[in-house]
Amino acid sequence: MREVEDLNASLGLLAWDEQTFCSPRGREARSQHTATLSSLVHERVTDEPFGDAVETLAADGAGLTDAQRAMVRVVKHDRDRSVLLDGALVRALAEQASRANRAWEAARAARDYRVFEPEFARLLALKVQQADCLAQGGDRYDALLDGYEPGMTVAKLGPILAGLRGELVPFVGELLDQPEPDRSFLDGPYDQARQRELVVRILTDVGFDFTAGRLDVSTHPFCGGPGPSDVRLTTRYYRSLDPGALLSSLHECGHGLYEQGMPAQYARTAIAHTPSLGLHESQSRFWENVVGRSAAFWARYLPVAQALFPDQLAAVTVDRMVRALNRVRRTPVRVDADEVTYNLHILVRYELERALLDGSVSTRDLADAWNQRYRAYLGYTPVDDLEGVLQDIHWSWGELGYFPTYTIGNLYAAAIDEAIRRDLDLDAAIRDGAYGVVLDWLRSRVHQHGRIVESAPLIQSVTGQTVSHEPFMRYLHTKYRALYCL
Amino acid sequence: MREVEDLNASLGLLAWDEQTFCSPRGREARSQHTATLSSLVHERVTDEPFGDAVETLAADGAGLTDAQRAMVRVVKHDRDRSVLLDGALVRALAEQASRANRAWEAARAARDYRVFEPEFARLLALKVQQADCLAQGGDRYDALLDGYEPGMTVAKLGPILAGLRGELVPFVGELLDQPEPDRSFLDGPYDQARQRELVVRILTDVGFDFTAGRLDVSTHPFCGGPGPSDVRLTTRYYRSLDPGALLSSLHECGHGLYEQGMPAQYARTAIAHTPSLGLHESQSRFWENVVGRSAAFWARYLPVAQALFPDQLAAVTVDRMVRALNRVRRTPVRVDADEVTYNLHILVRYELERALLDGSVSTRDLADAWNQRYRAYLGYTPVDDLEGVLQDIHWSWGELGYFPTYTIGNLYAAAIDEAIRRDLDLDAAIRDGAYGVVLDWLRSRVHQHGRIVESAPLIQSVTGQTVSHEPFMRYLHTKYRALYCL
Repeated sequence: MREVEDLNASLGLLAWDEQTFCSPRGREARSQHTATLSSLVHERVTDEPFGDAVETLAADGAGLTDAQRAMVRVVKHDRDRSVLLDGALVRALAEQASRANRAWEAARAARDYRVFEPEFARLLALKVQQADCLAQGGDRYDALLDGYEPGMTVAKLGPILAGLRGELVPFVGELLDQPEPDRSFLDGPYDQARQRELVVRILTDVGFDFTAGRLDVSTHPFCGGPGPSDVRLTTRYYRSLDPGALLSSLHECGHGLYEQGMPAQYARTAIAHTPSLGLHESQSRFWENVVGRSAAFWARYLPVAQALFPDQLAAVTVDRMVRALNRVRRTPVRVDADEVTYNLHILVRYELERALLDGSVSTRDLADAWNQRYRAYLGYTPVDDLEGVLQDIHWSWGELGYFPTYTIGNLYAAAIDEAIRRDLDLDAAIRDGAYGVVLDWLRSRVHQHGRIVESAPLIQSVTGQTVSHEPFMRYLHTKYRALYCL
Repeated sequence: MREVEDLNASLGLLAWDEQTFCSPRGREARSQHTATLSSLVHERVTDEPFGDAVETLAADGAGLTDAQRAMVRVVKHDRDRSVLLDGALVRALAEQASRANRAWEAARAARDYRVFEPEFARLLALKVQQADCLAQGGDRYDALLDGYEPGMTVAKLGPILAGLRGELVPFVGELLDQPEPDRSFLDGPYDQARQRELVVRILTDVGFDFTAGRLDVSTHPFCGGPGPSDVRLTTRYYRSLDPGALLSSLHECGHGLYEQGMPAQYARTAIAHTPSLGLHESQSRFWENVVGRSAAFWARYLPVAQALFPDQLAAVTVDRMVRALNRVRRTPVRVDADEVTYNLHILVRYELERALLDGSVSTRDLADAWNQRYRAYLGYTPVDDLEGVLQDIHWSWGELGYFPTYTIGNLYAAAIDEAIRRDLDLDAAIRDGAYGVVLDWLRSRVHQHGRIVESAPLIQSVTGQTVSHEPFMRYLHTKYRALYCL
């Protein structure tokens, strides 16, 4: 287990470096290194004596602590998936993902999906093979989804998403009928060094430990790196404040705070991780949206931002700032979307990746299918592939079944928001900068449990509710009816 | 072999990151990752079926190309050493080296060797164990030296160093009797951003490929990273120009040019490496000293430096600059030493590490023994341990037997200098910026051979001479008699 943990931590550093500092010519070799280390992980996890030990302990956990039983459960879950895949396929997937990712970058530079398509088609064929191995006659999509959100299935997710769409679509329509709030002052230009100063100040305030992490620049912001004692956040700077580095950094910081809060006593074990990407995403969404887009937050930080950017912000009030940061509108790009329309972006991807896997949409038709759905769900036609199907990195890495975890994260975050407000005055804490109180709550309820409990029962015990669209829709209604004076 | 290459490349990145961007708390975990990957390398190299294959091919290389036969020879050399060490010792060494390195850093902060001593004593005990395993009844020091300079032994090295010392000590005395050239203008302050601009300009000019490498900052400059397509140079900036970033960067760049010149057709094989650290060092010394401290070089770059630093350099002539950069004097710090006294610093370390290994000096007495030898050989008593025994990182990493390769590098570089001047007008090339011609010569004679040939026969064929102190002393005499008008 420790060897696997160390290999995965090393892979975390290799991946971080590839997206931040790796020289262009170094990336080809990097894909080989990554493939080799991934193969070694696979070899270790599927090792027979190791498997025998796991099965023995899974069958009889007498004498184990709760944490040790959780380790056995987690290792068995991951191992049961791994033994279904042979080493050659694992290596081929890692290598092809790296190639497809580079083709995706070239396609973005050319703004042309066709540059990406051949490599993506080869990657998809491998993903279908992988899904079939894992599904063992069951549903392909479920098999991949389980890798990101253990225990989640299309059968459970479908009704939740249907319920969400049923309430969301009319609400979006209602908001889009309203006059747009002014956001011109967000365009800047905002000096990059001062943006960084503001970001580092806020990340430090909310509790990110810079002695156990960093903030660098990459094309696509992420939270990665070797692990809890060394969390690598990245952001990207624009001329504008939003979309910009600030809220995206707070988002990644939410992931980072979760990572830094993993139970230190179980470092280098299988339970010092999140039980699911949805739960991880709930933490980033909480800090980005519930905190970072709130009036209480800007009551605190608008004066700080004004001191850094007097020309751009002197005349701006907290009310104007919050309305600007929460403007609802039709946008082509997921990562720039507001909280309300965001989940429609996810719906497009969820439907398309299911269709790619069941063969009802081919990679050749993907760009058209994408644009068609954007017209239908968001009333927007992307001007080109860069604004359309090439916008996200995930598929280029072979991450199919990943996107729903973003929506699950939103739903979890809303349920957590309701729960934390039962225990403390969240707005006052945010306004007063009492982030330690908020973080302690999250640490004790969520972070410190690592992967000891799965995410569904954890959320159930923390929030008193099973996952549904309802807390999230309550959150949206309350917030946006106030902002839009409905 | 490819798995081992990929693991070692990953280790190269982990080590680079540890010295550049790794957060303080991340370093503890990093030592675990490094130890695990090192153990996997050891496991792979000592794997029995792999060993059987190597032995079979070593016994009968019929049908193999020259390059493949070289791979077999190299893999067998490294494997023969590895099988003498058990995995637990390899892991213990890696972990203890990481601990000792951190203790060394703490000791430097405290300027007190005693902070380092207990961890170093534990590391030395493991090194003795390792050397005894490797030596198989032979000499401990030879066993370690062979890991850095294959084929080199105390029996061969001793007479060379004795010959060198015999000529060097009186020559140093002669130079130190002369009036010191003025070097006050090197003190600056020199703006760091402009220093970087100058460094990047020069590194680009001499041929370092920044699409296959980087230049970052670390406490101790080095050339490392994953491999030839991704070479990571580091430097450190001071207020002064020398000691400073410029010549140290040119030194690391010499290593980097060698790495980038490794035979691409043998990437990810055991022969896309140097045959010895001495040969590697010859490349860095060549660019730092033969090129970077020459009048021809400054005829070209003084105007460039003057444009960047008019206040500091406007009144400086090429002649003054070259005399200042080549001032000979008694200094306590090896990396700041001039070319003439430099090898006396190495002699101190060579004698002390032999004494540590044979037990004639204990770790407790090391600081005193160090200071005593500095007084004897260099006429200088370090003011504290930071200036003394704590100055170099090598021993803290367990690198004993490494230091002589610096002197071997100097000797090789002087022999190469004589050889290249037989083929082309080196001074004219340096003055005209025709670095492509110089680099092509080094690439075709040295770099592109990787580890296909061992360093002694390679140097013999390139220079027509076996390794000795003579070309180096000829180089020093010619250069310094002119500079000091003797």
